[in-house]
Amino acid sequence: MSTLWKSRYAQRTLGIKSSAIRELLKVTQKPEIISFGGGLPAPDVFPVQRFDEACHKVLSEHGPQALQYGTTEGYQPLREMIARNLARYGIVASADNVLITSGSQQALDLIGKLLINRGDRILVEAPTYLGALQAFNVYGAQYVSVPVDEDGLLTEQLDSSLRAGPKFMYVLPNFQNPAGVTLSEGRRHQLILLADKYGIPIIEDDPYGQLRYEGEHIAPLVVLDRENVRRDNGFTLGNVIYLSTFSKTLAPGIRLAWIVAPEDVISKLVQLKQAADLHTSTFNQYVAFEVARDGFLDQHVKLIRQVYRERRDAMLHALQEFFPAEVTWTHPKGGLFLWVTMPEGTDSQALLRAALAENVAFVPGDSFYPANGNGHDGGRHMRLNFSHSQPDQIHEGIRRLSVAVKMQLRNHVLR
Amino acid sequence: MSTLWKSRYAQRTLGIKSSAIRELLKVTQKPEIISFGGGLPAPDVFPVQRFDEACHKVLSEHGPQALQYGTTEGYQPLREMIARNLARYGIVASADNVLITSGSQQALDLIGKLLINRGDRILVEAPTYLGALQAFNVYGAQYVSVPVDEDGLLTEQLDSSLRAGPKFMYVLPNFQNPAGVTLSEGRRHQLILLADKYGIPIIEDDPYGQLRYEGEHIAPLVVLDRENVRRDNGFTLGNVIYLSTFSKTLAPGIRLAWIVAPEDVISKLVQLKQAADLHTSTFNQYVAFEVARDGFLDQHVKLIRQVYRERRDAMLHALQEFFPAEVTWTHPKGGLFLWVTMPEGTDSQALLRAALAENVAFVPGDSFYPANGNGHDGGRHMRLNFSHSQPDQIHEGIRRLSVAVKMQLRNHVLR
Repeated sequence: MSTLWKSRYAQRTLGIKSSAIRELLKVTQKPEIISFGGGLPAPDVFPVQRFDEACHKVLSEHGPQALQYGTTEGYQPLREMIARNLARYGIVASADNVLITSGSQQALDLIGKLLINRGDRILVEAPTYLGALQAFNVYGAQYVSVPVDEDGLLTEQLDSSLRAGPKFMYVLPNFQNPAGVTLSEGRRHQLILLADKYGIPIIEDDPYGQLRYEGEHIAPLVVLDRENVRRDNGFTLGNVIYLSTFSKTLAPGIRLAWIVAPEDVISKLVQLKQAADLHTSTFNQYVAFEVARDGFLDQHVKLIRQVYRERRDAMLHALQEFFPAEVTWTHPKGGLFLWVTMPEGTDSQALLRAALAENVAFVPGDSFYPANGNGHDGGRHMRLNFSHSQPDQIHEGIRRLSVAVKMQLRNHVLR
Repeated sequence: MSTLWKSRYAQRTLGIKSSAIRELLKVTQKPEIISFGGGLPAPDVFPVQRFDEACHKVLSEHGPQALQYGTTEGYQPLREMIARNLARYGIVASADNVLITSGSQQALDLIGKLLINRGDRILVEAPTYLGALQAFNVYGAQYVSVPVDEDGLLTEQLDSSLRAGPKFMYVLPNFQNPAGVTLSEGRRHQLILLADKYGIPIIEDDPYGQLRYEGEHIAPLVVLDRENVRRDNGFTLGNVIYLSTFSKTLAPGIRLAWIVAPEDVISKLVQLKQAADLHTSTFNQYVAFEVARDGFLDQHVKLIRQVYRERRDAMLHALQEFFPAEVTWTHPKGGLFLWVTMPEGTDSQALLRAALAENVAFVPGDSFYPANGNGHDGGRHMRLNFSHSQPDQIHEGIRRLSVAVKMQLRNHVLR
């Protein structure tokens, strides 16, 4: 009976906060709610027709292979395509440096499994991506966190944190989830130099890099690192493991992402992935290859940029229009999120309850800080997603949210 | 550089043998090789046309939802369909007892993550499924193994092994991988009574249960267990976690399987799955539901049974025709595999090299025993898959294999 099972659970730290977003996702399925909560891409720009054609082509031409077991590393033509696309950003990699994963979440899980021993400290941005904390918590990670501002991780505060000897750094340099901020070029150079000085490797998570709505592309850490290291096994990948995904450029429902790393790191990760799920869906890899090929991916990313830029602008304008002067927010140059800061002492969990009463949802800021990390002020923050709702919904949603915010600020002052 | 990464790997027991099958799979991609190695379903019976129609229907009618993020538990209509299908085998479960996983391998990984603390002993059949050993090894499992004969696990030898206090038992009652044997009804009852007596839960892995080619269906352990326990949370699931999959009935390339367990166990596994890969491909779940519905799955399973029965018979006949008298093999009543036993002292690794020179492949028996378990005689066994090759190929492949076997036996006698 269940009690028997319960007595047998290993004591994994499961990360209590996991339920916050999960419960939220359930509430936000009600049609009357405008949700800025999930990190959902806009379903209205999914290339449904192209997927339909791709499925038909794959099943007509490669049905038996696409429905069969595949290799753990991934579908070779897809790995080659990803390697070619990486080259445009200056990332020199072959297919042998690319491991296909079942979403970036699996990449984080495999990296946690490979690198984290119970009690190891991981350096993260504060705030940082909730899913990474969940993945690393399972392996007993502890955290050292370093704050971000509009230019990303405060590298001037890194020195002392690195002296504490973290196992690795986990960084989202572009349009960070949740804060929407981007690590400046100067700080990227500093980060690489510090990583090298202290011998601390970096996990560079880049799900949104292609979704830039203004400003110039900044070289990823994996490229800046390369300029710092010698050729290694014929490839110039070094201190940085780089992650990206099709979830934000094609569709998240196909669960396709990839890890770029030196070959010997890939070979360890392949062993762990084989034990974790054998391989990622063969069929989805064939289909994604057919969807993306012949320039479609680039063309589609242009469309997404245009749609999301408009939504970001709608949210920034609505915030300006409705929100009180004592509340501030970030101005993301890309990605899916912005980060709102309320006066000290605000309780964003209470605000969420008030917001839900107004039929609008967001994720409270404290979800994005490790429970066992340094002290933080997550309670005064909220993460707003602008990619999922259409501009008029965004306008109305921010109006509703402002009602809850003003009420909360009034209560706060009165208290 | 890579050396930096290497110095940071956690000391996970990765299970050296993982490479045996992986390397084999690479060799067997050569067209001149007849492979009895992989556990591959027959690609010629994949319902390609039905998949094509299902993809088109899903994308036309539910495109935006099917390509979007989904819930960790899985697509509700699919979970309900699985619960309904379970009822036919007497397994009383609702959708809330069903968690969709990315193949059964992920089910094994999540169960290992939830239940195994480093050093815990797991009771397994000898031989047992290689993938389970790989999944459990990552979490530092030790093993107690109990031999099987044609009637499955030797339950009369269980008592002393259970007194050693294993964390759980992992059992494949139907057409076991690799031995092809089936646990008799009498032994199933004994197993349940012993599990209850010692309070040791059971993981029942049943990927092949529907692929029976002769004899009568035997009630799964989860059903026999139910007769032993009181109603628990409104459901009668108790001491057994039950696993099954679409990999052998629809197609493995879509990576869809499920765990059936009490609700509180499911809720723990959901948390771990969320951290591991968020959720299984939404698109594949919609497509599998469309493929399977309206009785198609049952009808298709009938076709598979017919095709595989013919292939099993072809292999049994060819073994009879070509193999020397001192070699024996199991007579599986279903599934994908049979198990060959050679005279004591035979070296199945050397035999594999000889077989590959004859352009035929199999998996050497020692891959299916835990490295750190009790002593075993895996070296004199080989696993043969009969589902993947057509009858004439099976005939020719067994002829080739018999050449290698006879040579090996001659050397063995001469030595």
